[in-house]
Amino acid sequence: MSRTVYWENGQVKMIQQRLLPRTFEIAAFSGYREVAEAIRDMVVRGAPAIGAAGAFGMALAARQSPAHDCVALLDDLAAAKATLDAARPTAVNLSWGTARILDLARALAASSAGADEIRSAVLAEAQRLADEDVEINRRMGTCGAEIVPQKANVLHHCNTGSLATVDFGTALGVVRAAVGQGKDVHVWVDETRPRLQGARLTAWELMRDGIPMTLIADNAAGMLMRAGKVDLVLFGADRVAANGDVANKVGSYNLAVLAKENGVPCYSVVPTSTVDLSLAHGDLIPIEERSRDEVARCGGELIAPEDVPVYNPAFDVTPHRYLTGIITEEGICYPLFSLSLQRAVEAARQRRAQS
Amino acid sequence: MSRTVYWENGQVKMIQQRLLPRTFEIAAFSGYREVAEAIRDMVVRGAPAIGAAGAFGMALAARQSPAHDCVALLDDLAAAKATLDAARPTAVNLSWGTARILDLARALAASSAGADEIRSAVLAEAQRLADEDVEINRRMGTCGAEIVPQKANVLHHCNTGSLATVDFGTALGVVRAAVGQGKDVHVWVDETRPRLQGARLTAWELMRDGIPMTLIADNAAGMLMRAGKVDLVLFGADRVAANGDVANKVGSYNLAVLAKENGVPCYSVVPTSTVDLSLAHGDLIPIEERSRDEVARCGGELIAPEDVPVYNPAFDVTPHRYLTGIITEEGICYPLFSLSLQRAVEAARQRRAQS
Repeated sequence: MSRTVYWENGQVKMIQQRLLPRTFEIAAFSGYREVAEAIRDMVVRGAPAIGAAGAFGMALAARQSPAHDCVALLDDLAAAKATLDAARPTAVNLSWGTARILDLARALAASSAGADEIRSAVLAEAQRLADEDVEINRRMGTCGAEIVPQKANVLHHCNTGSLATVDFGTALGVVRAAVGQGKDVHVWVDETRPRLQGARLTAWELMRDGIPMTLIADNAAGMLMRAGKVDLVLFGADRVAANGDVANKVGSYNLAVLAKENGVPCYSVVPTSTVDLSLAHGDLIPIEERSRDEVARCGGELIAPEDVPVYNPAFDVTPHRYLTGIITEEGICYPLFSLSLQRAVEAARQRRAQS
Repeated sequence: MSRTVYWENGQVKMIQQRLLPRTFEIAAFSGYREVAEAIRDMVVRGAPAIGAAGAFGMALAARQSPAHDCVALLDDLAAAKATLDAARPTAVNLSWGTARILDLARALAASSAGADEIRSAVLAEAQRLADEDVEINRRMGTCGAEIVPQKANVLHHCNTGSLATVDFGTALGVVRAAVGQGKDVHVWVDETRPRLQGARLTAWELMRDGIPMTLIADNAAGMLMRAGKVDLVLFGADRVAANGDVANKVGSYNLAVLAKENGVPCYSVVPTSTVDLSLAHGDLIPIEERSRDEVARCGGELIAPEDVPVYNPAFDVTPHRYLTGIITEEGICYPLFSLSLQRAVEAARQRRAQS
């Protein structure tokens, strides 16, 4: 399988996730505005994956820019960043990815690089970010696998696999690493209404990998925990605040509360790029509301009265007290999260500085 | 609107709930086996409604029976009861309704009634049961309305309205009664995957009645409670054990845990016919598993990989400690439920004996 998002022949290419699991198709984009649209429409989704898509979008913007001097090029890149960042508000990885590109361009301009030099450096940096994402996911998987029991039923929400990242996955990366270590893992796959990323994407990934799984309606998660049929709850995150509060796909909070009530360990699995130390707590994270049709329709068909009023938040916030830990590529963070997350972010910064 | 289930011209008629909200259609059945099938396929659903459907099914069985003597008729009725009861295992109202008819037939036979006399008494009793259901629901609504604040956001799971009963509803009956008293009620309608009774039926009922409502994915319930946007959680039940444990539509347990965690009162609303004093606790209640297609498909369309393994329990059990109270037609039961439920059942028995 190809990577979820990559650069080829001057285009950004993505697995068209809206068509899965029925059709596997690669979508190609030649302009950053189309990339922003693809992010908004969820052709590509998952915090790390849209981070990489944003970075590649910046590389496209650099190519598209007619600028001859670096001041004009920086202006065009800043405008592209604003467009890309606006595509989806909750996942911090998007603005993190575009910022990394813009910061590099600014640093090069400050050291008198020419526009074309910046263009090629920007593309190389986007490539590097994508490659790093895969490596980070594998490291995160290895770190996280240690808390997966030898024989484990893992309950998983949304999609956090190869499709949510450049490759391998965050929470599903932990599952993959545990399976790779010979552990006997079965995954309860929350279908994850309204967009059904669990049913459409996670089930597809796990079945391709031959990892045992069972699809459930989100409503069945509680009774499974109460019956002792869940050993571990794993999900990703779209943004983690400095105190360890986690914004993730709506319904994650429900799972975390049910896990705590039933004595089931619950972890969020994230690269440090998802940690936003600038926000003191989770209720400061902007929560995206999406179209009413995601709820009023299912698989194209209207499943409610025509004019039904709908509230459709895409994410919720899980206060840190419900989390056993937060798994990152720099190790597992435990309470006090305000300390452990800061350390993980610092360790990642040092690793990058040394590489 | 017609009643959900009724007798007309020698047939059992039902609102065909599988076609709602798109099409309003009445289905007619001339044999008790078809009625059993309609219950299994959820043409009619909701514990009180299938109780009435079962009773009318028994009246059909009495008509269908070629028996000239009452011994043969009782045999045929007992066979019909077994067929009807097997249609759905969790809701106790079904076997309660068929038992009420069979008990009457047996009592009449013991007092030397003829077969035809039994046939007409049986139909009259089914009619009475249906009429009583409406009256009980209205009484339950009045009892329950007192715990609805003057201005209230009520979170509601599945469908417990007119369509789940003969008319008026249980939990939605409480909402209707509160609105009737001039209270300002808005309902958050859980869509209730996998069968979407909330989106399909509850939204339809509330919109017809002009009661303000908003449809949500089940996953959004937790964040609404955490945000203080829910004043009260109401759902029905398919069976209540002697200690107050409640089997209801899968996902009810999740709501009850989330409500407790967030200090939101949570009530189950049931007629005393749903209380099964013969079961000491909820984990003795048989939980129906339904077809994988209910999860793997949505509105006819396949939403997961073709051969995906599925677990699809239709109900879960909410341990009584999560419930603030259980609202019945004989008043609101509070802990200690093992006492208060027994009293409510006894009060209902006395009321019937006096009527």
